[in-house]
Amino acid sequence: MKIGILGAGQLGRMLALAGYPLDLDFVFLDPATGACAAPLGEHIHADYVDEHALTELCVSVDIATYEFENVPAKTAEFVAARIPLLPPPNALDVAQDRLSEKTMFDRLGIPVPRFMPVATREALEIAVRNVGLPAVLKTRRMGYDGKGQAVLRTPEDLDRAWAAIGGQPLILEAFVPFERELSCLAVRGKDGELRFYPVVENVHRDGILRTSTPKLDDPLQAQAEDYARRICEQLGYVGVLAFEFFVADGQLLANEIAPRVHNSGHWTIEGAECSQFENHLRAVAGLPLGSTALRGPSVMVNFIGDVPPNAELAAIPGVHIHHYGKSPKPLRKVGHATVTAADDDALQTRLAALQALVAQVNAGA
Amino acid sequence: MKIGILGAGQLGRMLALAGYPLDLDFVFLDPATGACAAPLGEHIHADYVDEHALTELCVSVDIATYEFENVPAKTAEFVAARIPLLPPPNALDVAQDRLSEKTMFDRLGIPVPRFMPVATREALEIAVRNVGLPAVLKTRRMGYDGKGQAVLRTPEDLDRAWAAIGGQPLILEAFVPFERELSCLAVRGKDGELRFYPVVENVHRDGILRTSTPKLDDPLQAQAEDYARRICEQLGYVGVLAFEFFVADGQLLANEIAPRVHNSGHWTIEGAECSQFENHLRAVAGLPLGSTALRGPSVMVNFIGDVPPNAELAAIPGVHIHHYGKSPKPLRKVGHATVTAADDDALQTRLAALQALVAQVNAGA
Repeated sequence: MKIGILGAGQLGRMLALAGYPLDLDFVFLDPATGACAAPLGEHIHADYVDEHALTELCVSVDIATYEFENVPAKTAEFVAARIPLLPPPNALDVAQDRLSEKTMFDRLGIPVPRFMPVATREALEIAVRNVGLPAVLKTRRMGYDGKGQAVLRTPEDLDRAWAAIGGQPLILEAFVPFERELSCLAVRGKDGELRFYPVVENVHRDGILRTSTPKLDDPLQAQAEDYARRICEQLGYVGVLAFEFFVADGQLLANEIAPRVHNSGHWTIEGAECSQFENHLRAVAGLPLGSTALRGPSVMVNFIGDVPPNAELAAIPGVHIHHYGKSPKPLRKVGHATVTAADDDALQTRLAALQALVAQVNAGA
Repeated sequence: MKIGILGAGQLGRMLALAGYPLDLDFVFLDPATGACAAPLGEHIHADYVDEHALTELCVSVDIATYEFENVPAKTAEFVAARIPLLPPPNALDVAQDRLSEKTMFDRLGIPVPRFMPVATREALEIAVRNVGLPAVLKTRRMGYDGKGQAVLRTPEDLDRAWAAIGGQPLILEAFVPFERELSCLAVRGKDGELRFYPVVENVHRDGILRTSTPKLDDPLQAQAEDYARRICEQLGYVGVLAFEFFVADGQLLANEIAPRVHNSGHWTIEGAECSQFENHLRAVAGLPLGSTALRGPSVMVNFIGDVPPNAELAAIPGVHIHHYGKSPKPLRKVGHATVTAADDDALQTRLAALQALVAQVNAGA
């Protein structure tokens, strides 16, 4: 079976690495030169709205999926009219617009921070009165890794925030003084079977994910699964879906969903029985899902900007290296490592050694 | 770093899958059309003795290795004169000739079944008198998966065996009524560090490996490691080496070595901390070696001729599917699966389900 993937970044690369053993082949469509998944399949080097290129993709594969959630709606529509496109395009529609997303959470009874749409400078005043301060003003579309966001702490911050990102559809969200950030990775098969990985505790810095730790028997596991189930069933979802939450006063508050494999699930390659990448492919290819059980303690550390030297990484026991084949660049996700160990004490020792290497790279940058 | 690989079969394919996360890229040289590793790197489609193609390989990579142990000696010499070729070519020389191999075992004090070279029909008579019957007559070169072998049980078998494989350099080996077949996978780094995976119990049928089971705390582990160490140090070896043994009267008898990653080590992908493929690459790339420790119980089952349907394989918990991207053909190794489980009982239940699928495919062939 040949799978078309819209996007050829690191997620596409890891999908392909998981897919070859299942007898899948891959065709990527991505406008980037030197896209990092390109060496692992055919690469149609074209813009997402190039209908000639999209036709070429559709005729050369059996089904399509995406690894980039900002695939234009028209692209998804074009592909879905010709071949099966999974997860379904309505998931893209919802996930691409923070207002649609939050509205869906609300309608499905999933707790969400207070929010209001903001179209004009005047509407921002009204929204601040309703939502309160502190709050976060965000673009409704195209935000990722903390981009397109401005924190409002006092009324004096409104002008600066408006100057930075005003003039496009925005949403104001109450700032959540969270205790933890959790994500729940769900996978749903074509037959509707749902499986959930253990929830993941995530640490961000400068708006970028830094570490993800799967939590065995977290008290919020059942609640997170229930919310993720509502979303998946509402959307008729097929594939892996990531649902990010804040935890405040011990309760989950929905932040956002990603209708794709997700950075907070990279630990599953070594840490779970069946990785998020293999399970996404199993789902979209119509195969039975694999086990989402933990294989033991693990933690994932992102490499932002640059990767520490292989010789030093490989010297730490239990460190599994994942380069994305990208050139170094400040704030760019260029790789990650998952640390595994037989018990939590050994894991923390290994993690500390890895974090020391990461700190050296960051200090040198 | 770019790695050149002589051969582009399933071993090359699994090396590449293990190597991309380490930031390695791959160029394969293989005369086969549709070689199964080709989608995972550049493929120089040429004969092993094509000096123009070998030059192209040498100028486009940093180091070279091989996944095919019958790479011609002249090819290895040509490459090694231009770029580092690891494991060292002398390992190929020894492994390609059963007489050199057995002679080396003997010289290093490693017990080996009685053997004698056989060049002529008359020499066969003499060899049978010295070695005794039953015995196995084998070609000295190019044998694999039971090809180029004839079992001699009575003096009447000599003519038939000579007719089948006579006229080329042969070796007669005493038939070993073995209790078990074991292999020991060693990996040696550029700095001489040696690591060993737990010994593997192998089951062959019709001369082809069917299942491999890593054995924790096998009583012969230390002895197997000692013998593998002698070989690795004798050869100045770098990379993964597989050493196959017979067990008779509870003692190891050397059968053969393979100077490469090996079918009896495929379970390491899911069953060990660091797979044989990653460790081979770490070794030849000069990186510290990864842990060879078990992650839990596992067993590997080869798919010979054809692969059971993905939907049925994926429905068995703990079954990790590995297609090689080859078309079905009787007696061809077209894939394998490794079964993992939390304990031996669960492993046996899953293995039985997998073996039932394999039996169905074989019955249909």
